[in-house]
Amino acid sequence: MTVRRIEVGGARPYVVEVGSGLLGQVRVPESQVALIHPADLPRAFVETVQARLSPCVTVEVPPRDECKTLDVFAGVLSRLAQAGLPRSGAVVGLGGGAATDLAGFVAASYLRGVAFYTLPTTLLGMVDAAVGGKTGVNLPEGKNLVGAFWPPRAVWCDLDTLATLPPAVFREGAAEAFKHGLIADPTLLGRVRDPEFRPGGQLLEETVADAVAVKAGVVTRDLTEQGERAYLNFGHTLAHALEAVTRHAIPHGDAVGYGMHYAAVLSRARGGADLTAQTLAFLRWQRPAPLPPLSYADVAPFIARDKKADAQGVRFVLLRALAEPYLARVPEDVLEREFLTWNLGVHALT
Amino acid sequence: MTVRRIEVGGARPYVVEVGSGLLGQVRVPESQVALIHPADLPRAFVETVQARLSPCVTVEVPPRDECKTLDVFAGVLSRLAQAGLPRSGAVVGLGGGAATDLAGFVAASYLRGVAFYTLPTTLLGMVDAAVGGKTGVNLPEGKNLVGAFWPPRAVWCDLDTLATLPPAVFREGAAEAFKHGLIADPTLLGRVRDPEFRPGGQLLEETVADAVAVKAGVVTRDLTEQGERAYLNFGHTLAHALEAVTRHAIPHGDAVGYGMHYAAVLSRARGGADLTAQTLAFLRWQRPAPLPPLSYADVAPFIARDKKADAQGVRFVLLRALAEPYLARVPEDVLEREFLTWNLGVHALT
Repeated sequence: MTVRRIEVGGARPYVVEVGSGLLGQVRVPESQVALIHPADLPRAFVETVQARLSPCVTVEVPPRDECKTLDVFAGVLSRLAQAGLPRSGAVVGLGGGAATDLAGFVAASYLRGVAFYTLPTTLLGMVDAAVGGKTGVNLPEGKNLVGAFWPPRAVWCDLDTLATLPPAVFREGAAEAFKHGLIADPTLLGRVRDPEFRPGGQLLEETVADAVAVKAGVVTRDLTEQGERAYLNFGHTLAHALEAVTRHAIPHGDAVGYGMHYAAVLSRARGGADLTAQTLAFLRWQRPAPLPPLSYADVAPFIARDKKADAQGVRFVLLRALAEPYLARVPEDVLEREFLTWNLGVHALT
Repeated sequence: MTVRRIEVGGARPYVVEVGSGLLGQVRVPESQVALIHPADLPRAFVETVQARLSPCVTVEVPPRDECKTLDVFAGVLSRLAQAGLPRSGAVVGLGGGAATDLAGFVAASYLRGVAFYTLPTTLLGMVDAAVGGKTGVNLPEGKNLVGAFWPPRAVWCDLDTLATLPPAVFREGAAEAFKHGLIADPTLLGRVRDPEFRPGGQLLEETVADAVAVKAGVVTRDLTEQGERAYLNFGHTLAHALEAVTRHAIPHGDAVGYGMHYAAVLSRARGGADLTAQTLAFLRWQRPAPLPPLSYADVAPFIARDKKADAQGVRFVLLRALAEPYLARVPEDVLEREFLTWNLGVHALT
């Protein structure tokens, strides 16, 4: 069985392994380990990892984004303290991107920081959340407003775990892989929509590995989001607003699908190549959860509050052409006008 | 008016200024600032800083250790998000060590980290909490169990603020300055007990500056507590246990006063010089809050849970002689026997 290894550089380099059967091969040097996983994860995954690591405490957290709150954060920290996890111990996050984001922030903060490992079990978690060291939780005021940069010591992407995902959740996760295609590796664009890109499919391993490699490259060159790393936010400004305005009824990957199309529409409006056929084709393949009727006024306050906003306006990641991202401040009137274009395109899908 | 400047090295060096009138001279490069201070701070301090910095939000937090909870942390983060503090903004902590510890953890976590500045207004905050980058809050399970290493960009120790402190709070803070004398600069030991070491006194500025310089030197050489920095925990293992067992009825500096005597007793028992006359003399000068009757069994569970405990036992910072600290694992039977010695010494004070 092949395993692909992708190196992530930075102050403390680490390796992402992509392959089958990895849950049963996990090994960490720390003797005391806390395992954090969502309550709805298949028992077999949890038991396989427990058998390998013998954690001193296993903490179940609420499923999906419900775990990304400061209340859950506080409860998990108390469980670790009660178990006496020492500073020389480790936190292992097993699950989707939400659970591993939470687990990473716990690892960053418990005793001011202990070793962290991730075992993502969703496509979204593999190609996005697991690499790069961004950890954190949401506030009532918005997503990911609190957290830390705390890279893992190792990441294992066990492709077998994807077989248990509902197809819609797999397609949700494909959005970040498609985004990596748009901003850096156009060969991914066709593969992501290929019938063999599915759990157990011929193109799964290489596509996941190549999508991870795009993010690993960017993160290696820019650990704390001073420059290039911002390109990974392609499509995310509107995505975060859609998530907020629907109170997270729209899954993150679906929101990114919609958001990439908006970013493509804006890119064209600002003189870039017209990539909207690509982003619409992806949306047709992805079949994201439907949106309620929305006007620009509904999303505008959330766009302004995005982390990429500052005193000079809202920064967007746009594309001059495939694999040529750049940062631009987009005036409010353009944002509003092109929102209409986006809305027409999105509603023509259904 | 003289101002003493102490440089703190590390990945991002910064300067600690010690002098009079500094609140009215504060300047930061960031245009948007959140000011965090305890509710019981004199209004004049808050207004002086507000007039300099024009914060976009000022957040009052509960006094003393009451602010060091994850609940308060969550509330402050929401206030910053509501005010729209951007990633390019800054958090300024004004107050005692508890408020600046909280403010630092907020700065480390808000949008995964923004610039942080501190204006300590207690002696303890100046000589201990303000330098070194340790930030954090308490858990119900123990003190400082959650936080981040997040050094400030600058620290201003305005000595004028000390004039409003109750004398017992000033003497409390002297414990950390005395500790810096024991582990590194014995000239501090006499100065800390000199009548001119008081608000407005002749020895205040140089003593505070020299005590800060000890910590700055240690922190510069060891940013994340891999080695030498552990020496700053001299006296703190029992101190944390006394705080926990009394549910924080004992102020931190008073607990450190008691804890330094225990560490001196243990140092002698393990073959080091007898420095117990020094630590008892300090306790007589400090007049810490009285302790309830305690047996070793009362404190033992908290000593074992200390961050300096691991699978091999409890590490203590001991002294071979003045300014010669070292780390040692002390067997449980010695800890128990010498607790009796300590108890007799402490009770003879009253």
